[in-house]
Amino acid sequence: MKTLVIVSHPEINNSQTQQFLLQGAKLQDVTWHHVEEISDLDVAQEQVLLRENDRIIFQFPLYWYAAPEGLKHWEDEVLTRNFVYGDGDDNLSDKEFGIVVSTGMPLKEFRRGGSENITIDQIMAPYFAIADRAKMKILPTFTIAQFQYMDEQQQMQLLIDYQRFLTQKYPDTLSNRQAWFEQEFADRFKNFNDTNCTECETVLNTFIQRREDLEQLKNTIDLIKQGEDE
Amino acid sequence: MKTLVIVSHPEINNSQTQQFLLQGAKLQDVTWHHVEEISDLDVAQEQVLLRENDRIIFQFPLYWYAAPEGLKHWEDEVLTRNFVYGDGDDNLSDKEFGIVVSTGMPLKEFRRGGSENITIDQIMAPYFAIADRAKMKILPTFTIAQFQYMDEQQQMQLLIDYQRFLTQKYPDTLSNRQAWFEQEFADRFKNFNDTNCTECETVLNTFIQRREDLEQLKNTIDLIKQGEDE
Repeated sequence: MKTLVIVSHPEINNSQTQQFLLQGAKLQDVTWHHVEEISDLDVAQEQVLLRENDRIIFQFPLYWYAAPEGLKHWEDEVLTRNFVYGDGDDNLSDKEFGIVVSTGMPLKEFRRGGSENITIDQIMAPYFAIADRAKMKILPTFTIAQFQYMDEQQQMQLLIDYQRFLTQKYPDTLSNRQAWFEQEFADRFKNFNDTNCTECETVLNTFIQRREDLEQLKNTIDLIKQGEDE
Repeated sequence: MKTLVIVSHPEINNSQTQQFLLQGAKLQDVTWHHVEEISDLDVAQEQVLLRENDRIIFQFPLYWYAAPEGLKHWEDEVLTRNFVYGDGDDNLSDKEFGIVVSTGMPLKEFRRGGSENITIDQIMAPYFAIADRAKMKILPTFTIAQFQYMDEQQQMQLLIDYQRFLTQKYPDTLSNRQAWFEQEFADRFKNFNDTNCTECETVLNTFIQRREDLEQLKNTIDLIKQGEDE
């Protein structure tokens, strides 16, 4: 599965959040595509990029309940009607669409009665409408609230969750999570081969052993449930 | 009451709809403010303009379920947090906020199950959220669907409804409508003074007479209802 991250931020070098996410994205095999850096937008080329990827992510900070103008410019130029739904080619259908949004407000304000008085899903509805039009599958929005207040552990958790959002198979089930972590461990440990990292192998083997134990446990529970149902 | 119409359209001269609306706006005492024509955005000046007006209208064609990038640029620059809700000055509070949106799709497609599968209100939620944040009063959205298919009579109706949206007192009650039409008649007929337009006066007097008849009728109905309730 190939992932394209379409990032919009007018001052990306000054954004701690975006720089942090960039580090995470670099560890994954994804295409990072910053729209404000495109000096001469080639619509055909952008459309090729969309066609080549299976998961399309819009990533941006929330400015007045929407993406910055840069993403709207990209949308209005690249997403021609024919490309999205007009010519029957179904260029985007069955691809996955997700949003990574950051906000300086606490998440709890995004609800009826909160200071923002609107939910994240309501804010994203216009983007979901594009995805619906293109017959894409919509992923749950990945919201990053108040990155600046996160401690190191929270940031590490964010990094892993973000990486999973970029490349883990959807839906986010236990088995899909396990498969993603196992793959990640194996890939990372390859890099330690020169130094003969025995610890790494122990971690990976322990992980696999635990996963197998869990599967065994699940089977046992299923058998008990079956017995109860009869 | 002073009205500011903030218009966003990247090719306004080629837009039949916008040119038509411009003719209507010219007949009203409103400020027409086309954001794509602003070459050097002066944030302080724009904020003065907002402060000076009582009704703020965003007017734009629907591009991918939102305004064109030009309006987003204006929003992100002009609507500083302090200005909208930060400094306790309540610069915009109790002003009226309305949207005039045009679309090439039939109105019936904007509902669950329609080809757009999203309502106009859902599309506008991010703009309403700004208005809520600024403690503004939200007017019902004025939607223009498929202007290009309207016949002359439908266009005339649109023109009047649009003008009422710009300057008529809210809410859109019978008495507010009557007051608006009476004022419009009087204003327009002044222009005919030189030619001594007796027909104009007859129209105006008939209109006033009908309005008085209607008020009388309403009083009678109220009395009957009162009798029934006792």
